[in-house]
Parts: sequence; C-alpha cells; structure tokens
Amino acid sequence: MARRSKIYAGRTKTLFAGPEPGTLVQHFTDEAILPDSRDCVTISGKGVLNNLISEYLMSRLHEIGIPTHFVRRLNIREQVIRELEIIPVPVVVRNIAAGSLTRRLGIPEGTPLPRSIVEYCYKSAELGDPLVSEEHVTAFGWASPQDIDDVMAMALRINDFLIGLFAGTGIRLADFRLEFGRLYDENGELRIVVADEISPDTCRLREHRGNAPLGRDCLKDGPEAAAASYREIARRLGLVADGGMRVVQAGAED
Amino acid sequence: MARRSKIYAGRTKTLFAGPEPGTLVQHFTDEAILPDSRDCVTISGKGVLNNLISEYLMSRLHEIGIPTHFVRRLNIREQVIRELEIIPVPVVVRNIAAGSLTRRLGIPEGTPLPRSIVEYCYKSAELGDPLVSEEHVTAFGWASPQDIDDVMAMALRINDFLIGLFAGTGIRLADFRLEFGRLYDENGELRIVVADEISPDTCRLREHRGNAPLGRDCLKDGPEAAAASYREIARRLGLVADGGMRVVQAGAED
Repeated sequence: MARRSKIYAGRTKTLFAGPEPGTLVQHFTDEAILPDSRDCVTISGKGVLNNLISEYLMSRLHEIGIPTHFVRRLNIREQVIRELEIIPVPVVVRNIAAGSLTRRLGIPEGTPLPRSIVEYCYKSAELGDPLVSEEHVTAFGWASPQDIDDVMAMALRINDFLIGLFAGTGIRLADFRLEFGRLYDENGELRIVVADEISPDTCRLREHRGNAPLGRDCLKDGPEAAAASYREIARRLGLVADGGMRVVQAGAED
Repeated sequence: MARRSKIYAGRTKTLFAGPEPGTLVQHFTDEAILPDSRDCVTISGKGVLNNLISEYLMSRLHEIGIPTHFVRRLNIREQVIRELEIIPVPVVVRNIAAGSLTRRLGIPEGTPLPRSIVEYCYKSAELGDPLVSEEHVTAFGWASPQDIDDVMAMALRINDFLIGLFAGTGIRLADFRLEFGRLYDENGELRIVVADEISPDTCRLREHRGNAPLGRDCLKDGPEAAAASYREIARRLGLVADGGMRVVQAGAED
C-alpha cells in the first residue's frame, strides 16, 4: 500500500487522506476504551465488524433520506468518507436509563425513560465529553440554534429507525451516540450530515429477551466475550455468516 | 415565642408554618455548606444578613414586575413567604466562568462568557444538583416547555437587573442561582414566582476593581473573612451601617 498521510490518529479510528479530493479514509482499529479507566483493551476483530456495521447502518440511513459522511467501503478495515467540519457536540439519544444518566440523576439502570431524551456533549477527550445544554452549545458558538434543531430532528429520526432495525433482530437499543458535521452538498449548500461511526462501539445494546448486555458492555466478561458479542450483532444484521468473520455483504475493493 | 411546626429543616434555612394560611416562615441560619466537602461551617451573622439582602433584592424585583414568594420580613432572622410548589429545577445564570463550569468545560476561571448562559440543574442534595438540559426537565416532567420558557425569561431579566444593581456598588455578578415555584395568584391563576433566597449564599460576587472574591468565596480565607465580606456586601447595598450589624432598613415586627 502506498504511503498515506495520516490526518488524525485516535485510539479506535485513524483518518488518512482519501483517494479523491474532499474525502478521507477512516480506518477502524481493534482498540476499545474502557469506560471508567479510559485505558485501552483489544477486542479482536472489532475494527472489521464496526467497519461493516457502520457501512450497513449509514447506507440504510441514506436510503431513508438521512445524509451521512459515508461514501463506500474500501477494504475490511477501511471506508471512504466525506471530509467535513465536525460539529464539536456529540449527541446521545437515550431510550432506557443506563451509564452516566443513572449515576448523575439517580435513576436505576434499565428504567424505560418517559420519552427518548437527546443529550448534547462537548467533544473533548481530555474532559470526557461532558454533558452540556443547548445554552452552552449556542453561547460558545459550537452550533447555531438552527443547527441544533436540525441535529435534534435527525437524531430522533435515526433513533426511530435504529430501534426498529435492531428490534427486528431481537436487540434493544438502550442508547447511542452520534456525531454530526457540516459539508457543502452538490448544490453548494452547507448541510449537516451524520459523521463518525454507528456501531456497537457507539450503541448500548441489550437482548430484547432477558435484557442481557450485547457488544461493548460484554467487556465486563473480558475482551473475548465482547468480541463474540460484536460478531453476534453483525451476524444478526446479516453481515457475517454464522461462526466466523466471513463477510456476507461484499463492498468495493475487498 | 409560641411553639411552631417545622415544615423543613435544611442546613442554611428552616421553614415553619406561617402566620397566615398559605404562608411559611423562612428562618436563615449562620451555617454555610463548603462547596467541595459538603461539610458545614458557621459564618457568624450570615443568616441575619441574608435575611436582609434577600428581602431587599426580592422587593426590588417585585418593583420591576417580577413576582417572588417574599411577603414581609418578620424579625432579624426570619421572613414570611408564600407557600408554593417548588419546581425541582434550580437555575444558574452565568456571566463569567467560575466554579463547576470551569472544571467541566475547561474554561479558565474569570473568562467573560460570550453571552449570559442559563443552566438548569436537578434539585437533589444527595446527587449534588447535577446539571441537566431542557430535554431532561421536560422528559421527566419536572417542568413543562412553557414553564421553562417563563423561567428562562425571568432568569435573564433578573440577571440584567442584578448586574446593574451590584455594578452600582462596585460589585461584579459572576453567576447566581435561582429557584422557582408555582402558586395560584389572586385571580386563581397558576403562575411561576421566584422562590428560595437571593443572597451572597446564592450569588458569586467579585470586586469590580481587581476582581477579588466577595462573599462565599472568601471562605477560603476562613469564616471570619467570609463574615466580614457578607457585612461589606450588605453595607454597600445600604442595608447595614458601617462597621456593625445595625439594620438600616427596618422591616415590620423587628
């Protein structure tokens, strides 16, 4: 492979200059950040699966008219994405109380929320993406009130869609995180699109029956258990065949 | 004094049944809660001063058409207030970065904010009044969207007024906390009014010149320094005479 210029090196993803102007290559690693210590652990095969799952979910969103940064899958660990200006306000959509919500507001884990709640955070690895309100977002100019309205509307549509899609495979979507960015569309108009990834790294998933954790939360039973659960999620979505990592849905340039 | 029924015993305030139906007596103690340890310390005379200052500020707000729970001062430590249903969403209005905002968002202490920011918290001593967004407030039914709009509008008016009032005495208002409640007015209509207290306990104040802390933040130099600073604030507001605790502005039933 030709030497490529690295644009950004995170722990779970690396970005390289892309094959066409205005594109980047998003490379998925097997590293996972432990929620409390912020240390890393390796979940073998996770990057390959997240690359597939994010491709699949972003493509389905595109079909229902929700624009994303996804262009095409490049190989088993990489996808081409549109280069954009990230809005530094990750969004968390919550359907069931879990994680920081339970600790901050004293609500028992697993409580169904009265309605879906959209939370805004300030993107800062150093500060741990602290919760913020619309007031902070607009006062500091991270996004305009119109941006926030657009992001909120898209987040709720994506939530409806993903709840349905996961429910169809026996999975409950407790909460998930989205990132958004701004780019100029083909008509030269600035628009907001879904960025980053949508995968078991960014979604908190549960078995519909029995409520057992799936994906990331299986890390409490060790990295092998988490790796098996990531494979199970991809299998249920029809992206890998039973028992292995064979890719069912072929992308370009595999 | 006749035995009275205690309605609520907090550390900085106690509430008793009031002299008329629909009223309570709010008694101000000298206790202060240390911001980090949540331990208590005594600031001698603080309750008397806060009773005066809160009476003064609530009365001035009434004059500009902002309804409050304040009825009249009863004696040096107590005031009669309207009984109401507290909205469990304390509001913090911030003009200058200080306290939790600096820690959570990594903004240096003392930074003027691009505009005043209104934060909502969930009222819970146990959870430390965690920051929440409008989403949490409306999803959990703590207040309606209309309530939030009313609270926001009142908080911003109060901020404008208090900035001006303190500036006139050489004091900068970095941030302050408000509580609101619902009660039926004389026409039988439910309305939102300012509750709790407005005092150096709930306002973060600085010298306009040199930015030295005033009030609560003087606790870092000990309770005597804080007590002197509370007296200085009351003196600048014209509520006590130089060098002492003599009340300048007499209330009823002193």
